[in-house]
Amino acid sequence: MPRISERGLHMPESPIRKLVPFAEKAKEKGVEVIHLNIGQPDIKTPELAIKAVKEIDMEVLEYSHSAGNESYRQGLAKYYDRVSPGINFNQILVTTGGSEALAFAFMACFNPGDEVIIPEPFYANYNGFAETSGVKVVPINSSIEEGFALPPIEDFEAAISEKTKGILICNPGNPTGYLYTPEELDKLRQIVEKHDLYLMADEVYREFCYDGRKHTSLLNLKGIEDRVIVVDSVSKRYSMCGVRIGALVCRNETVISTILKLAQARLSPPLLGQIASEAALHTPQSYFDEVSAEYVQRRDLLVDGLNEIDGVFCPKPGGAFYAVAKLPIKDSEKFCKWMLEEFEHEGKTVMMAPASGFYSSPGMGKQEVRLAYVLSQENLKDALSCLKLGIQEYQKTEATLV
Amino acid sequence: MPRISERGLHMPESPIRKLVPFAEKAKEKGVEVIHLNIGQPDIKTPELAIKAVKEIDMEVLEYSHSAGNESYRQGLAKYYDRVSPGINFNQILVTTGGSEALAFAFMACFNPGDEVIIPEPFYANYNGFAETSGVKVVPINSSIEEGFALPPIEDFEAAISEKTKGILICNPGNPTGYLYTPEELDKLRQIVEKHDLYLMADEVYREFCYDGRKHTSLLNLKGIEDRVIVVDSVSKRYSMCGVRIGALVCRNETVISTILKLAQARLSPPLLGQIASEAALHTPQSYFDEVSAEYVQRRDLLVDGLNEIDGVFCPKPGGAFYAVAKLPIKDSEKFCKWMLEEFEHEGKTVMMAPASGFYSSPGMGKQEVRLAYVLSQENLKDALSCLKLGIQEYQKTEATLV
Repeated sequence: MPRISERGLHMPESPIRKLVPFAEKAKEKGVEVIHLNIGQPDIKTPELAIKAVKEIDMEVLEYSHSAGNESYRQGLAKYYDRVSPGINFNQILVTTGGSEALAFAFMACFNPGDEVIIPEPFYANYNGFAETSGVKVVPINSSIEEGFALPPIEDFEAAISEKTKGILICNPGNPTGYLYTPEELDKLRQIVEKHDLYLMADEVYREFCYDGRKHTSLLNLKGIEDRVIVVDSVSKRYSMCGVRIGALVCRNETVISTILKLAQARLSPPLLGQIASEAALHTPQSYFDEVSAEYVQRRDLLVDGLNEIDGVFCPKPGGAFYAVAKLPIKDSEKFCKWMLEEFEHEGKTVMMAPASGFYSSPGMGKQEVRLAYVLSQENLKDALSCLKLGIQEYQKTEATLV
Repeated sequence: MPRISERGLHMPESPIRKLVPFAEKAKEKGVEVIHLNIGQPDIKTPELAIKAVKEIDMEVLEYSHSAGNESYRQGLAKYYDRVSPGINFNQILVTTGGSEALAFAFMACFNPGDEVIIPEPFYANYNGFAETSGVKVVPINSSIEEGFALPPIEDFEAAISEKTKGILICNPGNPTGYLYTPEELDKLRQIVEKHDLYLMADEVYREFCYDGRKHTSLLNLKGIEDRVIVVDSVSKRYSMCGVRIGALVCRNETVISTILKLAQARLSPPLLGQIASEAALHTPQSYFDEVSAEYVQRRDLLVDGLNEIDGVFCPKPGGAFYAVAKLPIKDSEKFCKWMLEEFEHEGKTVMMAPASGFYSSPGMGKQEVRLAYVLSQENLKDALSCLKLGIQEYQKTEATLV
């Protein structure tokens, strides 16, 4: 038999989804699984988006433009003009989720063997897109003790080699929830200018910034407009992950025209999702205010609850809807699996994402898990009870094993 | 500024879409453009598919499974069981269009530098997926004079090197409309077995076989089940190109589990498109019968009409809805552009895809164009009138240039 490709062999399994078979078995046994492993919010999609889909008046569900429907791109231009004045629709490409936007950015900007620096822990699928584009991820450690702040500038300087072509951040961060300050972003601005690099940001959680803090988009960094690529998505903004609509925003015409060729090869982004997304642009501010207030309550409930458990440490995130917690156990992957296979409390258990998959450095994050506070406060309370008891029980098992 | 990647520079522009700006200018001048450049049928999407979308009863448009909704995959298994008995849902992955299925197959099976043999002319975007996965396309010429039949077995043997990892066909063919015979497919079966290769087929036009001919799927080739990967799509089958739903079918468990990792990295295929596609599985046979009958009439009208034009040669295709015609002009790309920029007849012109983009060998297909007979017979008649007059006028211009 011909062999599988090297990248196929090396392609990492998603730490978010790899334990799904164990969750399915738990459900078969009648155990209720509280899914904190995945950023699938229970928040309702804006009604006007669903209504737009239900009211389509079409006889043929046709291809759209490879760059996305122009009416949607014009609408997006107004949205981004509020993020950073002067963005026009030619600087926006509609993609199949934020995932495709990032894959396109890697493909268009990096050669196989090129290096991209990413503060870790980072969204696990960046490893996947690096693998498929042949790019090497050079991680810089941001530590849980520092609340996952931007690592010192010296760490970036030390990591830059002749092969470095870019820096990628996620702001606010998945999995850390960390929101970069304008000062931190200015440091990145200086580094990319000095070393002639691209600067990319995954800003899909832009609307989810808490405690009065404001989000600064890379699109606002002066003097490096041609180096900046912003990856975006409607998935979390409007809680419609399933429609698979994202966007790539860039003021560099060469980057845009190159990515348009990649976009033409896959013909067009999903039509129905674009209809929902275009309608969603008219979502009232009150929706975001309500959703943010709910996430803040969930965050406080979860993070405070975690820190009350003996031996658990979890910094309070300033944005997004994830938290990384350090647990008093040796191997979070084994623990997460055990929680699904062996544990239940009042017919329930909790599913988390082992954090090691969010690191690129081997051995990092082994005691950490990512939790998404995307479910109701009641669910989160049950999850905390499960986790508290689960850790106690598991520690005994672990002690026996040693 | 950091440079664009090599693959970004080399990425071919779509021959189907690169002339779009000239078509847009023609439209601005008030000229009606008859689009035979793109396989966007005017055939109505089955009503039950649109109805399913309009009747969604969901409050959150959630992610689906990375492999696709299980209910849809179970439905697809029944469909494929009719194509090749014994296919089960674990052998089917739902993808974002046939494009993603092919990109996944290349990524999972081929290393950068590996070679894939493809009879040319072939669907232009295969070049794009080869570029992004670093795979080298080794074309074998199938000639318009032979009606684009499978090239002789000796041509394949001659093209096989140590780097060859697979053969890809499109059956029935885009852009040729050629339908491979069971005997031709058996030859391919022998070659891949002898040389330890993968055999991939793009079978998205499976339902469009004319004149009583039957389609043979690669899934039916005995003894090479583990080598076969079939790429599929609902785009043409149900005339719903915009929903971006495809599938990859393979009996090789290692290939499927590798591609599932690639699928997890992009989270899930489009939810709304899957809902339309699952409903479309219940499309009655009468729909396909009517559509096929219509395409046969269109084919006969177009191909016969083309062959009546002085100096034009167009073999009659046995399937799909494309035809490649050789025109009495020197450079079809210039001609197609001229038809949009300079020509009009009674306020109309015709847009075609220059065929050179469907060849991988430089210089091939320069006199050829691809025409998609996806529009009404009235449109096709107008297109033929335009083309006849256009060729006459252009020949004078060309003579002046020389």
